[in-house]
Amino acid sequence: MAINAYAAPEAKAPLTEFSYEEHETGAFDAEIEISHCGVCHSDLHLVDGDWGRMSQYPLVPGHEIIGTVKSVGSAADQSLIGKRVGVGWQRGSCLNCEWCLTGYEELCADHVATCVGNYGGFAERVVLDSRFAHVIPDSIDSDNAAPLLCAGITVFTPLMRYAKSTSIVGVVGIGGLGHLAVQFARKMGCEVVGFSSTDAKKDEAMELGASHFVNSRDDDALKKARQSCDLIIATATANLNWGRYVRALRPNGTLCFVGVPSEPISVYAGQIQDNLQVTGSSIGGRQAMKDMLNFAARHNVKSWTETLPMDAVNTALDRLRKNDVRYRFVLEK
Amino acid sequence: MAINAYAAPEAKAPLTEFSYEEHETGAFDAEIEISHCGVCHSDLHLVDGDWGRMSQYPLVPGHEIIGTVKSVGSAADQSLIGKRVGVGWQRGSCLNCEWCLTGYEELCADHVATCVGNYGGFAERVVLDSRFAHVIPDSIDSDNAAPLLCAGITVFTPLMRYAKSTSIVGVVGIGGLGHLAVQFARKMGCEVVGFSSTDAKKDEAMELGASHFVNSRDDDALKKARQSCDLIIATATANLNWGRYVRALRPNGTLCFVGVPSEPISVYAGQIQDNLQVTGSSIGGRQAMKDMLNFAARHNVKSWTETLPMDAVNTALDRLRKNDVRYRFVLEK
Repeated sequence: MAINAYAAPEAKAPLTEFSYEEHETGAFDAEIEISHCGVCHSDLHLVDGDWGRMSQYPLVPGHEIIGTVKSVGSAADQSLIGKRVGVGWQRGSCLNCEWCLTGYEELCADHVATCVGNYGGFAERVVLDSRFAHVIPDSIDSDNAAPLLCAGITVFTPLMRYAKSTSIVGVVGIGGLGHLAVQFARKMGCEVVGFSSTDAKKDEAMELGASHFVNSRDDDALKKARQSCDLIIATATANLNWGRYVRALRPNGTLCFVGVPSEPISVYAGQIQDNLQVTGSSIGGRQAMKDMLNFAARHNVKSWTETLPMDAVNTALDRLRKNDVRYRFVLEK
Repeated sequence: MAINAYAAPEAKAPLTEFSYEEHETGAFDAEIEISHCGVCHSDLHLVDGDWGRMSQYPLVPGHEIIGTVKSVGSAADQSLIGKRVGVGWQRGSCLNCEWCLTGYEELCADHVATCVGNYGGFAERVVLDSRFAHVIPDSIDSDNAAPLLCAGITVFTPLMRYAKSTSIVGVVGIGGLGHLAVQFARKMGCEVVGFSSTDAKKDEAMELGASHFVNSRDDDALKKARQSCDLIIATATANLNWGRYVRALRPNGTLCFVGVPSEPISVYAGQIQDNLQVTGSSIGGRQAMKDMLNFAARHNVKSWTETLPMDAVNTALDRLRKNDVRYRFVLEK
């Protein structure tokens, strides 16, 4: 049976209609009828070929999938049939290595990505390992939930790892990831500082849960922020003066990159002697995903989204290229 | 009453006899008759003026002090009198801030250093806050114990923070700090990899407890060490190719600098996405000091030392300048 999708035929090209033959449903697979799919900056990078060999064309992007399970393989949890599930960046791993066995499936060497080497979620259906399909709590609407599956888990994981409820958490970049990081941190009990290059985002940062706002390009303001945060989640991919953010950490503090600036981060050992940590993080394991979804449901953490019909995918990608979205596009069937 | 000591009259000058008037014994103070004092690279940096305003002359170095408590102030623990105690880099803090109250006295903004702005341990006596004088377990000889008070705690603290008994721990630099790091890590149950620029140290690294040895200047060997360690303690102060050491980390791994290379460490965010941490650490709090001393006593962790009489202090400093010591000088009364 064929699956209809939208694919980039080559790098930087508009997506066009495309159909491919569904692979045989494996023992653990689920066939998911897609109702929504978020549009992430990573999709744009894949379409544009920014990450080299990771892009193979025709390329069907989409890794913030929400849909309904239509059928499952013989070994899969049969109770999934008819349920609303979500799939994020990762659709598979070996499930047997030290990382998979300890809740770090994202670190598995045999990590399988949803739309790298596979056809993703800008499609009517997808067939993939049911063990990476996560039941969405009823209280979250699909359009608000879709971005949680990549943007949400990406910021939730380091917050869980490094923040305590008494922490002061800085969030650099109030965008698709950052607007969720602010909400999560606030709901975890933290005091939140928003850092953005756009002063116009101050009010929104406050509405999302920040108590303070710093313009991330205002060097004087950054200097004043010295030793002000226990944890800084850097979602921005711009090459900011990261030394300033290291200095904005309190003793024992952590600067965690979830975005990937192109230039290296440069730190002096003498600058980080007070147990400061510079670290990075990406997505999260399967249990982290369940924890994140349940936490979001309990605390009404929502992605602020603009919904477009699936056939407006090129509009969404073009506007995303211009950062013309607050804060996430979701394509709807 | 005057205290006789050895002081550098000016930067880089040989130490000469010097005496100063003892300050009044405060309520919490202890008067310690010094029997041994280790010689640390930091003493050399202070003597040579490498750290700018931290050096004030005449400068009495010495911060790995062992001695006997002769008297204490009215508010101090009276049972300390007659006991053998040790003092490390830190001789005071506010004891009231969030760091002091949680076992991180080394992070206190009012941190008082033993031989910065104070006369240190190359002396017959010292008077200082008894709460920073740590009772030395009977089973450790004074000459083996003295270097534990700075070199030992400096490596013990990050090992306790970042290593599990199942971890593979790399130690970069087999010297004053490194030879203790190898012993501590091995006795914590870890598998230990020694990294040194000196192949001749291979046998000693193995004797200290390493299972593997890598020449830290052999780029091919470093490439092969890719993803081999959970924790790397960098004691070397040379500007090595630290990118290689980041790549030598396994997922979730930590590269911790306890030495301070002069050049910045440069890392790409994309390189550390597997939860890799680049961090730094210095000494440790009072409870960490007690834990370290007890652990060293229980496991017979010893500094390998060469003992010289206190009046041979300039010989010790000159030989230390040439790295001609395995692995630590201790001056003896």
